[in-house]
Amino acid sequence: MPTDPVALTADLVRCPSITPEEGGALVLLEDVLTKGGFTCTRVDRGKVSNLYARWGRQGANRTFGFNGHTDVVPLGDEAAWTMPPFGAEIKDGYLYGRGSTDMKSGVAAFAAAAIDFVNGTPPDGAVVLAITGDEEGDAVDGTTALLDWMATNNEAMTVCLVGEPTCPDIMGEAMKIGRRGSMTAFFTMTGLQGHAAYPHRAKNPMPAMARLMDVLSSRMLDKGTAHFDPSSLQVLTIDTGNPATNVIPSQTKATVNIRFNDSHTSADLTAWMQDTADQVAADFGVKVTMQIKVSGESFVTPPGDLSDLVGKAVAAETGRQPELSTTGGTSDARFVKHHCPVVEFGLVGKTMHQVDERVAVEQIEQLKAIYTRVLQDYFA
Amino acid sequence: MPTDPVALTADLVRCPSITPEEGGALVLLEDVLTKGGFTCTRVDRGKVSNLYARWGRQGANRTFGFNGHTDVVPLGDEAAWTMPPFGAEIKDGYLYGRGSTDMKSGVAAFAAAAIDFVNGTPPDGAVVLAITGDEEGDAVDGTTALLDWMATNNEAMTVCLVGEPTCPDIMGEAMKIGRRGSMTAFFTMTGLQGHAAYPHRAKNPMPAMARLMDVLSSRMLDKGTAHFDPSSLQVLTIDTGNPATNVIPSQTKATVNIRFNDSHTSADLTAWMQDTADQVAADFGVKVTMQIKVSGESFVTPPGDLSDLVGKAVAAETGRQPELSTTGGTSDARFVKHHCPVVEFGLVGKTMHQVDERVAVEQIEQLKAIYTRVLQDYFA
Ligand SMILES: [Zn+2]
Ligand SMILES: [Zn+2]
Repeated sequence: MPTDPVALTADLVRCPSITPEEGGALVLLEDVLTKGGFTCTRVDRGKVSNLYARWGRQGANRTFGFNGHTDVVPLGDEAAWTMPPFGAEIKDGYLYGRGSTDMKSGVAAFAAAAIDFVNGTPPDGAVVLAITGDEEGDAVDGTTALLDWMATNNEAMTVCLVGEPTCPDIMGEAMKIGRRGSMTAFFTMTGLQGHAAYPHRAKNPMPAMARLMDVLSSRMLDKGTAHFDPSSLQVLTIDTGNPATNVIPSQTKATVNIRFNDSHTSADLTAWMQDTADQVAADFGVKVTMQIKVSGESFVTPPGDLSDLVGKAVAAETGRQPELSTTGGTSDARFVKHHCPVVEFGLVGKTMHQVDERVAVEQIEQLKAIYTRVLQDYFA
Repeated sequence: MPTDPVALTADLVRCPSITPEEGGALVLLEDVLTKGGFTCTRVDRGKVSNLYARWGRQGANRTFGFNGHTDVVPLGDEAAWTMPPFGAEIKDGYLYGRGSTDMKSGVAAFAAAAIDFVNGTPPDGAVVLAITGDEEGDAVDGTTALLDWMATNNEAMTVCLVGEPTCPDIMGEAMKIGRRGSMTAFFTMTGLQGHAAYPHRAKNPMPAMARLMDVLSSRMLDKGTAHFDPSSLQVLTIDTGNPATNVIPSQTKATVNIRFNDSHTSADLTAWMQDTADQVAADFGVKVTMQIKVSGESFVTPPGDLSDLVGKAVAAETGRQPELSTTGGTSDARFVKHHCPVVEFGLVGKTMHQVDERVAVEQIEQLKAIYTRVLQDYFA
């Protein structure tokens, strides 16, 4: 009896695995994969849980790898959800829940495809699933921990397919061969607290912060490059926490995220933001500090055998030849890229990270079929 | 035997009258004033206690009024006090305790002055003390309740002197003839939540909020007027509460406070902020709401008989001609203003609302002497 990827998705959605909580998701997968003939190893590091599963011989000539994550982002405005966020309820052809799109359905689809494939016509080679519980968070102890562990334990993938959602609107329309870089800047603006009635005795950091955020978000970073969309800067939060209506606060904080293409490096952007912040702080007579966290530089995997293999499977199952895209957020492909050729393909990601996140049940079935065809063609 | 304003201050400080607790302060004053020949009426409303005391005939041609409050702000960091906050202990010429400056010494000084004055050379007219237990709180059932009760009971003051501390550093250097208005605006900017990597699918409210706060705080409202400092707009807080570095938030909030002089009204400023907010929101394609709370309009009692009377008494007792000021926070003078001409004079307010609040014993005596001279000159 074939493994049901929809039921597996539902079981995973019911695990409340908000980063870094394992939430039962990897325990469940370890059980399912072990029963499916895979050798499973929990590769936990720090507060993060990860799962490595291999079918076939270590050191096989050809090892096909899948990569994905079971952790999910927080619920956002919980009251705005119309369906239980961890309920996995199905309505009008959609399965609802946090992580249903990003990317428990992807993990369920490749796990189901892999189990059924190796138990159908056992291939000459190995199939590996490297699944992390920390993709949405710091990603320091997630896929990186898996790759570190693989290196020291003579585990390897010949190629890798990441199952993140890659299609903007229509199933099959896009796969990813690279990603923009991503970096985050944390600003703290400090002045001098005082009474709102005596502003000359205080130094309000708020106008400087407003100006800095306005200046940073008003700059058009570029117009895009040959293989990349324009870079984008987003102010994610400004927080002060001043409850009093008669007190000028001493300090305020803001966070800015930049997704950048190959016309920038994190170093150049860091220098620009530091200069701008220093200038604004000087103009307003306040102090500013900036901390930078680089999630990844931009990268591209040149089109070739792997992208052809995946593209052909997608076209066969959906009738659509997927565009080779480099848009979107960071994914763990940026880590896998250092290990082996990697591309990404998954279903429509429209509602990811939103309230009422949901996945079309039909697309989960399609995705399993695509992954199955990829495995068949790879080992043919 | 003259009434001792220092002993009366100490007795009042020993009453723990944190708003809205009466704490025994008004009971004590009612007793002292009744024994001094005043007709006393408790004018309590809601949770607030107030005291109205009159010597002389109702409807007299000339009625001199004093206004003040016996309630005090909370202790703040109680462990940081080096003297008992309700102990009224005297050390090195200072009487310590919450409310010692703001403004139990002021109430004690005018009560002592009034009692001794009417029992010395009974004037041709009336003397009224309108004392509230809610100036530091909402001030909804305080001096307003007293004025309402006076209106319905044919009680009136010809002029009024509020005994709040008015001197920044040196006794006698300033009195107040008006106050700036104060209003607070609460903004909520709403867009659409989404993933930071897909900004075109989200609608980030942060750049609009940064722009709005920049535009509002960049406007010079005015350069000051004849009796007023320049108006001042302060951004007090911006809060979003978005902990994720990969999520564009759906909403952000900000609070703005304006202290404005007589070149503005709260209605004009409300209209300007609403127009500006609507324009910015339209420019950025987000939604904005604004809520306004007006604490008080600006008001001024133009220099004239009353300020001359008080200024002359201050100069005679301290050797300093007080500046006619309109700075500082709100006071109950904003309510009295609708009833009769009002000015404010009191001692040095440096430690008000602080830990180890204290008053120079000498200044309490001086203040009684000034109030006595004001009464003598007024009825001369
Ligand atoms: Zn994901
Ligand atoms: Zn006061």
